[in-house]
Amino acid sequence: MKNIDRLLPKEIRSLIRKGKWDKPTAGLAMGYAQANLVILLEKYAFDFLLFCQRNPKPCPLLEVLEPGKYRTEFLSSDADIRTDIPRYNIYREGRLEATVKEIKEIWKSDFVTFLLGCSFSFEESLLRAKVPVRHLEEKKNVPMFISNIACKPAGVFHGPMVVTMRPIPAEKVNRAVQITSRYVSVHGAPVHIGDPKKIGIRDLKKPDFGDPVTIQKGEIPVFWACGVTPQAIVMKAKPDLCITHTPGHMFISDLLNEELAAL
Amino acid sequence: MKNIDRLLPKEIRSLIRKGKWDKPTAGLAMGYAQANLVILLEKYAFDFLLFCQRNPKPCPLLEVLEPGKYRTEFLSSDADIRTDIPRYNIYREGRLEATVKEIKEIWKSDFVTFLLGCSFSFEESLLRAKVPVRHLEEKKNVPMFISNIACKPAGVFHGPMVVTMRPIPAEKVNRAVQITSRYVSVHGAPVHIGDPKKIGIRDLKKPDFGDPVTIQKGEIPVFWACGVTPQAIVMKAKPDLCITHTPGHMFISDLLNEELAAL
Repeated sequence: MKNIDRLLPKEIRSLIRKGKWDKPTAGLAMGYAQANLVILLEKYAFDFLLFCQRNPKPCPLLEVLEPGKYRTEFLSSDADIRTDIPRYNIYREGRLEATVKEIKEIWKSDFVTFLLGCSFSFEESLLRAKVPVRHLEEKKNVPMFISNIACKPAGVFHGPMVVTMRPIPAEKVNRAVQITSRYVSVHGAPVHIGDPKKIGIRDLKKPDFGDPVTIQKGEIPVFWACGVTPQAIVMKAKPDLCITHTPGHMFISDLLNEELAAL
Repeated sequence: MKNIDRLLPKEIRSLIRKGKWDKPTAGLAMGYAQANLVILLEKYAFDFLLFCQRNPKPCPLLEVLEPGKYRTEFLSSDADIRTDIPRYNIYREGRLEATVKEIKEIWKSDFVTFLLGCSFSFEESLLRAKVPVRHLEEKKNVPMFISNIACKPAGVFHGPMVVTMRPIPAEKVNRAVQITSRYVSVHGAPVHIGDPKKIGIRDLKKPDFGDPVTIQKGEIPVFWACGVTPQAIVMKAKPDLCITHTPGHMFISDLLNEELAAL
């Protein structure tokens, strides 16, 4: 697809809806917030909403739709959640059953949609302030680790927090904290700075998900809550049915990252 | 009660539990966060939780308990929500039926408890920075107005935002915005600064609730989202049953206001 990275969110969603784009969304519609998707049956919705309320750093809710609703109101005015995401994963009882390009056929009136913030939003802001983001420099996926920080449980949902790691030059750690603190709705401030062992991580070279990245001399590992947490927690609860975006294939909203930073 | 204003939250809650304090809680346990209470039947809980998620400024959730639970975990480790509030209002279908000192007898396993932040928390911080809080100076209740700002509806819950007004000297408005912005979980930054007509308020001398306060020359009316909003919204929906604290008779938590200010 030529010049897709110059298109507006609305235009990209239209291509996705028509089945003309089913690839990852990183780098598309720069400046606009992208969101993680979790769809659950109504019977799990209160517990999951409560889990997100209790764990806002790993589960920063951007929008929740009432049962059966598939049109967003806050993140965009013309999107259809059943068709506007490049790829969906369908899980039954916690096991991946299929990866599909739309979910119109299987949509039911008791589906509840949750859209959650993603760290793409604050990485743009770090780069603008000349704080390096190593996995972007090395064209890798961000390294993710299952920490020993327990999420606050809610109903059937419980488990450890998954965190991302970004090596930050010591003299810029302060700046990284300040910048990400503004983005409360996309994971916010770090959950840990420094010694990985303190949060149960043994080897930074062996992430549980994503790729290892180079840590240069004088850099400190800084850890943020990760949007993989809610997905891992949901899978662990083995709900009858759960639909998510396929990792990397996000919902592109009309909201600017800068709008998310406002308090 | 002698020296009650010097007691710790735990000690005051114990007095309340024993029926030895049933008066308002303003001025007690200074430095500690106080919370508004809303108890609803489980069938309304998802809609109300969603309403709070969509309207965090008027409805800043501090803690939500699972159906039937009456012990807080986050706001204190030893509190019983059925006995530790000085006075409760019981509403049936939106009408006040009774005011009682405890709700142990009527407690049911499908009651869901919501505790919401209150502006007491940021007023302390304003005073410390020498930003005047007029209604405290004049020993009045804060003036509250029904604005024309619509809350984002959720399920059966919808209606206008109730706001509080504090007159701030022009040269300190900036400081008032900065300070209250830090307190996201207790209404946060103002929702409007200046001309009351812009948000549908005709006469600052005639508040819908609370008392009018003096606006001095060179002062600008500044408006914050008010915790009366969720109560007004709930009453409008006329649920079979709803229990709240009696206005002014709040839950006193073990959480410091300063802890709420952290991001």
